Amino acid sequence: MQKIVECVPNFSEGKDQKVIHAIFDAAKSDKVKVFELESNPDHNRMLFTIVGEPEDVMNSVFGSIKVATKLIDMNNHKGEHPRIGATDVVPFVPVSGVTMEECVDLSNQLAKNVAEELKIPVFMYEASAKRPEYRNLADVRVGEFEGIKKEMRTPDYGPSEIHPTAGAVVIGARKYLVAFNVNLDTPEVSIAKDIAKKIREKDGGLPGIKALGFLVDGKAQVSMNLVDFEKTNFDQAYRAIEKESKDRGVEIKSSEIYGMIPLESLVAAIKSSFKADTFKSDQVLEKRLYE
Amino acid sequence: MQKIVECVPNFSEGKDQKVIHAIFDAAKSDKVKVFELESNPDHNRMLFTIVGEPEDVMNSVFGSIKVATKLIDMNNHKGEHPRIGATDVVPFVPVSGVTMEECVDLSNQLAKNVAEELKIPVFMYEASAKRPEYRNLADVRVGEFEGIKKEMRTPDYGPSEIHPTAGAVVIGARKYLVAFNVNLDTPEVSIAKDIAKKIREKDGGLPGIKALGFLVDGKAQVSMNLVDFEKTNFDQAYRAIEKESKDRGVEIKSSEIYGMIPLESLVAAIKSSFKADTFKSDQVLEKRLYE
Repeated sequence: MQKIVECVPNFSEGKDQKVIHAIFDAAKSDKVKVFELESNPDHNRMLFTIVGEPEDVMNSVFGSIKVATKLIDMNNHKGEHPRIGATDVVPFVPVSGVTMEECVDLSNQLAKNVAEELKIPVFMYEASAKRPEYRNLADVRVGEFEGIKKEMRTPDYGPSEIHPTAGAVVIGARKYLVAFNVNLDTPEVSIAKDIAKKIREKDGGLPGIKALGFLVDGKAQVSMNLVDFEKTNFDQAYRAIEKESKDRGVEIKSSEIYGMIPLESLVAAIKSSFKADTFKSDQVLEKRLYE
Repeated sequence: MQKIVECVPNFSEGKDQKVIHAIFDAAKSDKVKVFELESNPDHNRMLFTIVGEPEDVMNSVFGSIKVATKLIDMNNHKGEHPRIGATDVVPFVPVSGVTMEECVDLSNQLAKNVAEELKIPVFMYEASAKRPEYRNLADVRVGEFEGIKKEMRTPDYGPSEIHPTAGAVVIGARKYLVAFNVNLDTPEVSIAKDIAKKIREKDGGLPGIKALGFLVDGKAQVSMNLVDFEKTNFDQAYRAIEKESKDRGVEIKSSEIYGMIPLESLVAAIKSSFKADTFKSDQVLEKRLYE
């Protein structure tokens, strides 16, 4: 069986199309699939997906990191989304024929390259965390670029000083993560923040849900990561927000599924949404086509 | 984007396993997927599904038609299901990246091949119908093989005489048809029949919905065909039944999606269910990996 890994690097540029495309294009090669470039000017942030064999994916993302290091100066960066560096976070995700341990090894290999060749300090997170307090991305990013510029913490790889323009990078291995934003029909960002707090696992909400409240395009947005869609799927997350919104007299205006998602995450949502317990991904024609 | 077409040919043999498998095997090639062989001795009829790129699917089904023409003699055929020929009906269905017009073209191309190479008269139906009175399959099949043997009607392609053993063939293009059953938590079948009548297109309900009420395993069931999931998708059908059920003091117990479905039908449901207008099937990893 072919080993397939996914990588979804996030970079701190969401406005300048030249920079965005230079970073994106640097990942391309004949050996990997590179797709789903998404950028958001409010978040001032971009991300895309690389899929292929482990070594090829690592080389591909390293190409983009080099370009981002050259073109992004964090001293001039402003955006609503928390970030610690020009290349903000680089997760490796096992897709097929690959264990989590292999993805952890791959993340350590990339971290060494970034540290030695680009002189950027690296923090390891999730399954790759060297310290339990750094498993959670939010905990690694505390203080953001400005915070570690004032007072740097000891990194897992690389110089003990922050890179003057690129900041630091967070690298690791994790389960498939689905980004799902729900936009409320209100400009009151406090409502989104309140609902985010109510539904996220950290504060006693739904298992596998991370959530934050933002103001995006003049609307309050509950921005979520579903870190384990077998525990909480799209439907369960959406219905929870729908209920909390109604309780606060607000309607949901729209939602956005971000980036690439596995078919199983849709199947989980369909089963949940329509009480369709017997439904299976094998019933989807496109899946059977490539068996 | 890859063009994917489905074809579900029906042949007039449901008893002789040698003939059934000879016809089925003739469709197989490296270029298409051939599956879901079903045969019924009472109907004396078989069908299966071919999926792949348009030209490949057409060549695949033509292989089966040649074998069916050789092996089936309609003068000896008896069965409960209406039929007009050895190869009875051949529908092409757009699955992804293909328009209905392209499927109509494909059906005309196959019809020419069948007429010229096999000397079988062909009638075109559904979206491929050349005459409005032949859109509906039942209307094309009136009189069946025995009827057109006595008095042949003018075909759309091929000889004006019936083929002595293979009869005639009906070929066309139609939309994907999805079977979706919703089980109510009540044994009162009258409620299912009532809701079916309320939601089906025929009686002023939802466009593209055919529905009947049944009693299945002691529960009232609304059994639907979604004949155009772009007009009414799983979510819209389910929510309509949910509302009608609530109005009658009944809960939905479960639902069942039957057989193979195209990814786009799930995407339509997800978009509708979560107001996720920007969601696209290209975001599904399994689809993109093999493009």
